[in-house]
Amino acid sequence: MENTTNVSKGEFEDRIRRFQANIRAEGLDACLVHATESDMAHVRYLSEYWPTFETAALFVPVEGEAVLLVGTESDLYASRRSFIKNIEKMLEYRESAEPDAPGMTFMNYKDLVAKYVPGGIKKLGIVGWQITSLPVYMSLREQLPDVEIVKADMTLWPLRYVKSAAELASMRKAFAISELAVTAILNEVKPGMTELQVIGIAQREIYKHGGEYEGHALYCFCGEATSHAICRPTHNKIVTNEIIQLNIGARVNGYSSSVGLPFSLGPLPERKKRLAEFGLEAHKKTIAMLGAGKPAAQVVNDYEAWVHERGFGQYLLYGPCHAIGMMEVERPWMESTSDYLLEENMTFQVDTFFYEPDFGLRWENGVIIKEGGVEMLSSRFMELIEL
Amino acid sequence: MENTTNVSKGEFEDRIRRFQANIRAEGLDACLVHATESDMAHVRYLSEYWPTFETAALFVPVEGEAVLLVGTESDLYASRRSFIKNIEKMLEYRESAEPDAPGMTFMNYKDLVAKYVPGGIKKLGIVGWQITSLPVYMSLREQLPDVEIVKADMTLWPLRYVKSAAELASMRKAFAISELAVTAILNEVKPGMTELQVIGIAQREIYKHGGEYEGHALYCFCGEATSHAICRPTHNKIVTNEIIQLNIGARVNGYSSSVGLPFSLGPLPERKKRLAEFGLEAHKKTIAMLGAGKPAAQVVNDYEAWVHERGFGQYLLYGPCHAIGMMEVERPWMESTSDYLLEENMTFQVDTFFYEPDFGLRWENGVIIKEGGVEMLSSRFMELIEL
Repeated sequence: MENTTNVSKGEFEDRIRRFQANIRAEGLDACLVHATESDMAHVRYLSEYWPTFETAALFVPVEGEAVLLVGTESDLYASRRSFIKNIEKMLEYRESAEPDAPGMTFMNYKDLVAKYVPGGIKKLGIVGWQITSLPVYMSLREQLPDVEIVKADMTLWPLRYVKSAAELASMRKAFAISELAVTAILNEVKPGMTELQVIGIAQREIYKHGGEYEGHALYCFCGEATSHAICRPTHNKIVTNEIIQLNIGARVNGYSSSVGLPFSLGPLPERKKRLAEFGLEAHKKTIAMLGAGKPAAQVVNDYEAWVHERGFGQYLLYGPCHAIGMMEVERPWMESTSDYLLEENMTFQVDTFFYEPDFGLRWENGVIIKEGGVEMLSSRFMELIEL
Repeated sequence: MENTTNVSKGEFEDRIRRFQANIRAEGLDACLVHATESDMAHVRYLSEYWPTFETAALFVPVEGEAVLLVGTESDLYASRRSFIKNIEKMLEYRESAEPDAPGMTFMNYKDLVAKYVPGGIKKLGIVGWQITSLPVYMSLREQLPDVEIVKADMTLWPLRYVKSAAELASMRKAFAISELAVTAILNEVKPGMTELQVIGIAQREIYKHGGEYEGHALYCFCGEATSHAICRPTHNKIVTNEIIQLNIGARVNGYSSSVGLPFSLGPLPERKKRLAEFGLEAHKKTIAMLGAGKPAAQVVNDYEAWVHERGFGQYLLYGPCHAIGMMEVERPWMESTSDYLLEENMTFQVDTFFYEPDFGLRWENGVIIKEGGVEMLSSRFMELIEL
């Protein structure tokens, strides 16, 4: 297998070394890092492995080599996809239909520790706590009853905040593909097409131009569904003079992207056009606030104050940015409770969502934080388009 | 929102009633049923809800109404997608990046029980144990310390085994779309295309013909990756005189499908052709063994005995069938340890995989179990194609 990433083996190894330093600093003996099919970021960041059908974990002792833990059928795939040499099959990472796999033998956590950390462990950190499953936890409790188990997400998350040159290159390409996909949609969309048929145009373009998957479940909504902060496209038909919301994101080398815009076929009613145009103004306002050294909470507070001053506070659901990387939505969040400063080469989605009960709209573009401002990862669709 | 399913509200309500009867028979007071973005089947089966970005659960008391539990941003989407009237937002089902959502308020399990089961509960079943997350479990333990928590997957799974007319109609359509997608690939594939570009053809066709999503992470592999039981496509290039493996599945109304075949551009070397043709013979042999009333384990044992007799036992990884429904791989498994009889309108994938270290192949088609045989959900690609 080849070409699954542009990240060098040396960069992966450096990630693991820096993670191990955090594991040590936290007073842990090892971490168990989790991934699912739809939430693979932590494990892929450290190993390039991306499960499908099954789940996976990476066991990382404070020193020595990491061990990739896969389900009953993924060992050969894992051995060719990841540079990690130690691979073990475990029932805890099998498919949710729970195959018995009669005749096969599997590793367990007790033997895993005995094999790879002969001195044993006393304190184990779980990374990806939010996606760690009950079978994993129950087996750990049963097989390692004397080991203390703690949530340890923050031993890994901060390594992913500031992107390397290889990561930024992947994200630039992912956003460029997303813009090509939006262009194709705007060229081909017609009244009477379903939201899902529009998604098909995007999928076609993502793979044609070198994407490896969607960067997130793609959005095309028309009508009242545009008021949903989160939604899925349906067989609902595209109509004229109505907001059509797109959020289209390609994935490249594991890295996600998303380009979001409202548009219409024919002119919009004044009430909807007014909120869409105000949203765009707010979106640009946020972008102008960003830059290395800026306190994240200040961006949120300044943004919200500005929206309220302009009299649009009632249409506001949440803050204006979230980080993006392997997941389209990842840490750090930009919320009024945030306590960090923006750093050069952090990557964010400026995500400007306004809604009323019967419609909504979202402007979304990616940015790389730089000294004194940002590098735009996407900027081609920053005007209100009425086709 | 409209047209997300062809299943009537009455059929959904009947599913919940039958589930509640199982909850009662199991001596439970309620069940908590889980879903993730990539593993939504149990919750969608009962409620039509399909989370994205966030996760979800359905709380089903032994009597009374079910409650849909969603993350911080999905309440409006859920209220329009599902017929379930009771919807509560909980932090346990938020995105894995764990937004703080300052200023918002959320339900917790203690108040949930107090609101919907005023008499309280003593014993709670977890359905979807394999995908239930630690935050859910830790909150249950903390907020309901006197409630016994047990794995209860089998209170729901058997309801999903035998498909209704509406379910079968969705599956027939999903398989028909998958065959159209395979046809398009065979018409358009050329040496030098990447595996992922081939996937793009399939994605285009799935949405064009009325699919709502892929039925599983789609497969196109060329070369040694064909030996992987589980794998993901890459930028690896399609070459001539080599096995190219497809598993293409559309999703319709929640129901998955998959059509699998090996093919080649130009003639295959004799060694590979021989195993591919033997695989097809074995595949047809399995199909001929199926029918209502047949013990599942007997199918496996007869199949494996036949393969061994023919001298191909060394290339065998696992049994010949698994059920299909909302997940491409679901219960019941057909394994030598299976203890059930095939029933009319159960749906299976006949999944015939053989591999050597440097290549493999998989024939895969869907069937509906009938008296005396099967109805094929797909049968268009049951010959070895050398283009």
